[in-house]
Amino acid sequence: MSTPMPDNQAVARKTTTQFNQKFAEVAESCRPKLHEWIERPLEVMSFKPDTSAWFQCHPAHRMTIDELASTPVGKGDDFILDFGGHRVGYFSFHLGAVGNNIDAPCRLRLTFGEVPPDVTENLADCKSWISTSWLPDEVINVDWLPTNVDMPRRYSFRYVRIQVIDTSQQYRALFSDVRVRAVSSVSPETFNSVPALNDSRPLLHKIDAVSQRTLRNCMHTVFEDGPRRDRRLWSGDLRLQALTNYATFKDFALVKRCLYMFAAVAGADGSLPACLYEFPTLHAASDYIVDYDALFGAMVYDYAVASSDLDTARDLWPTVVGSLTTALSHLSPTTGAFDSARSDLWKFLDWDLTLHADAGMHGVVLYCCKRVDALAELLGYPPRYEAAIASMTAAATTAFYDSAAGVFVSGPAHQISWLSQAWLALAGALPPDQSMAALLRTMKDPAALKPLCPYGWATFAEALAVCGAKEECLKLLETYWGGMVERGADTFWECFDPKDYRKSPYQDYRNNSYCHAWSCSPAWLLRSVLFPDS
Amino acid sequence: MSTPMPDNQAVARKTTTQFNQKFAEVAESCRPKLHEWIERPLEVMSFKPDTSAWFQCHPAHRMTIDELASTPVGKGDDFILDFGGHRVGYFSFHLGAVGNNIDAPCRLRLTFGEVPPDVTENLADCKSWISTSWLPDEVINVDWLPTNVDMPRRYSFRYVRIQVIDTSQQYRALFSDVRVRAVSSVSPETFNSVPALNDSRPLLHKIDAVSQRTLRNCMHTVFEDGPRRDRRLWSGDLRLQALTNYATFKDFALVKRCLYMFAAVAGADGSLPACLYEFPTLHAASDYIVDYDALFGAMVYDYAVASSDLDTARDLWPTVVGSLTTALSHLSPTTGAFDSARSDLWKFLDWDLTLHADAGMHGVVLYCCKRVDALAELLGYPPRYEAAIASMTAAATTAFYDSAAGVFVSGPAHQISWLSQAWLALAGALPPDQSMAALLRTMKDPAALKPLCPYGWATFAEALAVCGAKEECLKLLETYWGGMVERGADTFWECFDPKDYRKSPYQDYRNNSYCHAWSCSPAWLLRSVLFPDS
Repeated sequence: MSTPMPDNQAVARKTTTQFNQKFAEVAESCRPKLHEWIERPLEVMSFKPDTSAWFQCHPAHRMTIDELASTPVGKGDDFILDFGGHRVGYFSFHLGAVGNNIDAPCRLRLTFGEVPPDVTENLADCKSWISTSWLPDEVINVDWLPTNVDMPRRYSFRYVRIQVIDTSQQYRALFSDVRVRAVSSVSPETFNSVPALNDSRPLLHKIDAVSQRTLRNCMHTVFEDGPRRDRRLWSGDLRLQALTNYATFKDFALVKRCLYMFAAVAGADGSLPACLYEFPTLHAASDYIVDYDALFGAMVYDYAVASSDLDTARDLWPTVVGSLTTALSHLSPTTGAFDSARSDLWKFLDWDLTLHADAGMHGVVLYCCKRVDALAELLGYPPRYEAAIASMTAAATTAFYDSAAGVFVSGPAHQISWLSQAWLALAGALPPDQSMAALLRTMKDPAALKPLCPYGWATFAEALAVCGAKEECLKLLETYWGGMVERGADTFWECFDPKDYRKSPYQDYRNNSYCHAWSCSPAWLLRSVLFPDS
Repeated sequence: MSTPMPDNQAVARKTTTQFNQKFAEVAESCRPKLHEWIERPLEVMSFKPDTSAWFQCHPAHRMTIDELASTPVGKGDDFILDFGGHRVGYFSFHLGAVGNNIDAPCRLRLTFGEVPPDVTENLADCKSWISTSWLPDEVINVDWLPTNVDMPRRYSFRYVRIQVIDTSQQYRALFSDVRVRAVSSVSPETFNSVPALNDSRPLLHKIDAVSQRTLRNCMHTVFEDGPRRDRRLWSGDLRLQALTNYATFKDFALVKRCLYMFAAVAGADGSLPACLYEFPTLHAASDYIVDYDALFGAMVYDYAVASSDLDTARDLWPTVVGSLTTALSHLSPTTGAFDSARSDLWKFLDWDLTLHADAGMHGVVLYCCKRVDALAELLGYPPRYEAAIASMTAAATTAFYDSAAGVFVSGPAHQISWLSQAWLALAGALPPDQSMAALLRTMKDPAALKPLCPYGWATFAEALAVCGAKEECLKLLETYWGGMVERGADTFWECFDPKDYRKSPYQDYRNNSYCHAWSCSPAWLLRSVLFPDS
């Protein structure tokens, strides 16, 4: 392999899964019904090169879908269908033919594009360290025409590029009844009945709508991280999805299902995997992320508050306690500060590999301990982490706070990053006004390390909102998520750097996901934190 | 298209199909049950370059199938399975995985090879004027491993090349339980119960066995011309298949079905298409070949003699008469000789486009008139073509026989071809001894045009046998069909030029078929004509 995965990601969870059948059965009992509806393409179009456009091209109308149905296509023909917005589901069409004889199969390449480059660029030479099997193209051979073609795999797309590799000299093909049987655990009725945002700014409404569509299109039999890639349940993503879901679709059962799925695959050491697989059967991934593990308790707390389902919280309490064990083992016995070097395990926070994680991880763990003690209070249990919280709160200042600069720093180079400020703010390591000041100072510091992905930006936006910097939070939503909207997003992207459309955590942006769970949080921030009347 | 189809083939049948529902229903009542059985690969192998070998490569063992089951494969791995002989059916396997996580789909290219070049050469740049959709490669994406993969299309192959396009860095794939669910209308019991050939020469036994396998692998719900390409019923091919079937598997119902299918799609002018399609519903191809049309009566005669089913022959009698109309319309009113210029319709005889067809076509039509009058006699009908037969017999000599040279010639350049001699010999245009002499003289004439495909060679071999030149016929079987056996054929090929493995009627041999109906006739010639005691 020319491009190895980053070393930290290669470290597997160091425990044995203790499969809990009872928890797995609870999860199974919460399996949602998937709703289905039909959507059709709006037009046949093409993309024209345009260096002034974000993705280096602009759309151009070619013909209507009715015209397509009477336009024979043959070898070398190439066209793009635009469904008008992001869809997740099963693609089908009627493949007719005109000519003397339909004397050979019809060979087609279909490419399912979430964004224009998926259908304008050559995907064959994609070099990313994650699997190129995720690339959204498919070659099919249809033996006998006319026929209905129902493609069996699920796709995630707005655009479908169809390249006719060959028909024969005797016939050409005709496409009609093109459709997608869209699927989600969110019904169209639920999707359409979310109340409008209580604010009049059009851009905020757009951001809100795109957030909701992102979340809906990731909601299937689990909260998937991305319906195109990786199509599975990741813990950190789940936290943001669940919070946004509480503010919109309120599908508590799906959250409950996902929490129990994690609990079902807890390790002998109490740890939870960073992600898990539903198929072929429920099992833990070997991927392990210290911060994702620690966040489980916060997710159970959020669920209990949103759903009032305290029975589930009680049932999961031992799992919650176990899930903090590994994170807490990283606290230095001498300084009380989080020390990444205490293990080779993966500390994520965001995809930027230059981020020094200690300060941010300290914030995560302190935040989680406080949430778990809040959960204990909700359940009538005694507080469990009082001493740790006190010690970590002190250490946050002594180990990470540069009082002269008024910001948190991390590592021997005293790295100033947005994420260190954000997690320590969320953790309440300082009073809110000081936290807010650190956040705002960092935003103004051109040398400060910004997040790479919306997961990191969401953390920062949340921190702004929680500390009371609502206007700054709104502005950040408008510039960052609004920046995606202005660049054509109808679902939010896995990775967005406003200066570089090719940016990717995977060495090649053609393997990025463009409907990604961890990017959906603006709908939650807008509705529950910024405009709580919505 | 860079390579247009030959002009003559582009001429469509000039009539309207009069669909005969009653005939179609008879055909449907004869639809065979398809038999299924499981076959497994014998080994994992590769081909090594070898310019001394026919296909420029020789096989080399790599590992056993058991070893494959415990050999993980990943991105870039490439191996070939050898099933030990030609198979037609549905390919399946169990796709397992080893590694930390099966965290991505598995993308595979599978190429189904009838002969080594299918799995050693790059197929992507194949330039043939027939559809490249026939090329036997397939790309699949398997979402969730481990799983059984059942490929839905039917393939025709001995070798299966599997290229692992990608798994992921987290896992590699494992292949086990690889199999083909082979299908044919000929059951294994029937296939294995054909009596041995009554001769001791090993090569003849091999030729006989390969012929039978060729025929069996073409027998499905119709007699297909080739199970890889074109997978449909052609009239001229059917004649040789039916005759070989009578000498081996004796499936009269499948012949009856095919005869009725042609009758069901006869034209308003009485003509029959050169081929027809069973799917999506029974319909005529627009392809029309004058000689194929004319041969229908001879096929009904052969069927009636072999099966003793005279009711079918009576029912099809009007179709038989109609099917001679177009061929007879090519006879010159002045000379009585077949004149290709009287239409632009396709006169085939064989794929060599340099063949001057008049003499050979004259032979075909005379042969067919005689067979149809023999059928009339069998049915107790008055002879119908006595005058035409007399006139054509005379014209055969006056228009085409060069008495000085002792051979038939065709066209202004007095072309001497093997096929002119063959068809006029089969037609009995001269007494058998003179016919035999013409055949043998032509064989010795290095300037005489030879057939290109086994269809033409089969006609010549038949003519030798019918005229009493049995030793020469045997020798021809040994050199031509035996030549394929010696070059590794386990089914007979669509096209074989002993001097050029790249020869093709389609401009590119990578689109040739290597299990082709019209090549199966040695089993018939050996059993019914040369060694009738078999």
